[in-house]
Amino acid sequence: MTIDKSKARIYLDYSSVTPVDERVLAFAQKFLTTALANPLGLHRSGQEAGMAIEEARLQVANLIHAEDPKSIVFTSGATEAINIAVRGTALRHKDKGRRIAVSAIEHISTFNSSKDLKKNGYELAVIPVDSTGLLLLDELRRRLTRETTVTSIMYANSEIGTVQPIFEISRIVHEQGMYLHVDATVAAGKIAIDVQKEEIDLLTLSSNELGGPQGAGALYIKPGVKVQPVSFGGGQERGLRSGTENLFAIAGMGEAARLAAAELGENQRLVRLRDELIEAISTIPGARLTGHPHHRLPNHVSFVFTGVEGESIILNLDAEYNIQAATGSACSARTLEPSHVLVAIGLEAEEAHSSLVMTLGRTTQQSELPYIINAVKQTVEKLRGLDWA
Amino acid sequence: MTIDKSKARIYLDYSSVTPVDERVLAFAQKFLTTALANPLGLHRSGQEAGMAIEEARLQVANLIHAEDPKSIVFTSGATEAINIAVRGTALRHKDKGRRIAVSAIEHISTFNSSKDLKKNGYELAVIPVDSTGLLLLDELRRRLTRETTVTSIMYANSEIGTVQPIFEISRIVHEQGMYLHVDATVAAGKIAIDVQKEEIDLLTLSSNELGGPQGAGALYIKPGVKVQPVSFGGGQERGLRSGTENLFAIAGMGEAARLAAAELGENQRLVRLRDELIEAISTIPGARLTGHPHHRLPNHVSFVFTGVEGESIILNLDAEYNIQAATGSACSARTLEPSHVLVAIGLEAEEAHSSLVMTLGRTTQQSELPYIINAVKQTVEKLRGLDWA
Repeated sequence: MTIDKSKARIYLDYSSVTPVDERVLAFAQKFLTTALANPLGLHRSGQEAGMAIEEARLQVANLIHAEDPKSIVFTSGATEAINIAVRGTALRHKDKGRRIAVSAIEHISTFNSSKDLKKNGYELAVIPVDSTGLLLLDELRRRLTRETTVTSIMYANSEIGTVQPIFEISRIVHEQGMYLHVDATVAAGKIAIDVQKEEIDLLTLSSNELGGPQGAGALYIKPGVKVQPVSFGGGQERGLRSGTENLFAIAGMGEAARLAAAELGENQRLVRLRDELIEAISTIPGARLTGHPHHRLPNHVSFVFTGVEGESIILNLDAEYNIQAATGSACSARTLEPSHVLVAIGLEAEEAHSSLVMTLGRTTQQSELPYIINAVKQTVEKLRGLDWA
Repeated sequence: MTIDKSKARIYLDYSSVTPVDERVLAFAQKFLTTALANPLGLHRSGQEAGMAIEEARLQVANLIHAEDPKSIVFTSGATEAINIAVRGTALRHKDKGRRIAVSAIEHISTFNSSKDLKKNGYELAVIPVDSTGLLLLDELRRRLTRETTVTSIMYANSEIGTVQPIFEISRIVHEQGMYLHVDATVAAGKIAIDVQKEEIDLLTLSSNELGGPQGAGALYIKPGVKVQPVSFGGGQERGLRSGTENLFAIAGMGEAARLAAAELGENQRLVRLRDELIEAISTIPGARLTGHPHHRLPNHVSFVFTGVEGESIILNLDAEYNIQAATGSACSARTLEPSHVLVAIGLEAEEAHSSLVMTLGRTTQQSELPYIINAVKQTVEKLRGLDWA
């Protein structure tokens, strides 16, 4: 087939940053201008701002089937929510124990929050995963104790797409330890989440990953679970996240959550595109799928390629085909370390540097697949050719 | 005069939340949609996002005459910047001393950050102010020691408008203690700030107070001053503020800073409106200006009224005149405590509950003043009448 290099951009980096849904923008725009006010203001504008935030809280609660909108705390993003969930919960319960547990493939925010606790005398258990990225449940069972106040596990991983069996994990955590925090940043809106049925104590969400604006995140805290703040100020959001509320981002997150809940079924479309891409790319010599073949995010395609640099793949797809994809996690893309996630699933450092991650979204079309598949094939062949030269 | 109750809203609560400048929106809009990407992404969209952030950093540095754009760290807002400045600096230098100092009229973010340090064994000196809100410099000199690692002082106060003599304060801090953090949240864009000439070590800014979007703030850190993070994650912003950058808010803050620097002279217009309002409202029986008559923000009008509840004034101005103003700080408006700022300048609790704060901005017009003045007069008279009934 012929490649049309003048083609419009094909954006396949949704899990790094998601384009804001135009319906969310249309909804939330007024909170940048005419309806912008401090929710603590006593005048009507302030009251309207406060009502917009409560409506957003309700929509976010609905998305994850929380028992009460009050269980949702808005933050400035997932990183802040994770800091509150991990450090705020561990510190609040330090009299009950100073042990925490995380999986080996958590986001760097969870790792670095945990490491700060470790520096302050906590014991940190890192639970390994198998070669598909699934948590080793026997290991989890073995490593948790009554002193493990917080266990933090990703619902799904952004680099390899693997989705964890959260309910099984929550049963183990509640038998052996105390509270389960689930980082649902990339999973929410992609798979159905029910914090009550799955018996989740704390859960982190990101506005942008739902198609909402950047600048908002949310932390679900099961009623009765006590958490302390890790930053200090005006005491907004039940004292857990001080600072004037980012009205536009929070209202936008609410609308994005509402749309995500209503349109969860449409992820079936992405599953078909995903599987078609995976099947085609698997035929490239030396290509290997990373993560789990079935228990994976509906929009997630990830591979390693023998003898090719992931960074070179990204740059070539961008320059030659106007396709924007990722290698590993954006959050560690500029370090020279191999991805801790790919190391955790057993890849050698060299393989771990050869990864391609393509995350699909609302704009991805069936008709684009042949172009994308060909671009990946030709890019890998071209780069291998260069290596041999 | 006749009062036209169908009048469009007159918003006089700028220092609580500032309407976003339409030029900022026009500039930053693309970072919500087409130009939105993760600055860590390796593709061109990621690089463009990174460049937009560096351009914003330059504009913010220019506004405060920082020596180097790299001295600017973007945060999610002023509260987060203050947490990093106060706690991050004090914790980083705990081997040099465990004393900090703040004025008696600081924002609650500064107070609560300080109180967290106090809980962790630090000694906290609260420096009093005079009846106009000016810091008592002799007290400052007397209370600082070589072990005072951080002294945190507001450039200007949002409740009473008083502007501090920052250069004199920085000289005292550097003679007696270590680092000066200046909370310039409400001062920036209103008065000229030069961190080099004024010898400021750390300085906090808010995007929204400059007319930029909510969701961004900035912390200036003088080159050479060491600060540690207070939250943990991907290590963005020199490791001091982890989390994917809020591109729209940061780019918008940069443009707002550029406009604020270019238009600093236009605050002279607000000074004239301010003085006309102050003069007229002073003639209301039992009205008393709070804060300093001259060393005050160009857009700031604040009064207490004998025998009238501030909250009732706000609600009546809103309901009857469509004027939106504030009483005390929005951040403590819904607590029953009298404002700590008004108590610090020597008001009795009852007087402190009778405050009216009107902060002017770009939309405030000379032609609106007679209407505003009359509304305040009639509101105070009406409420006094109700009390007597």
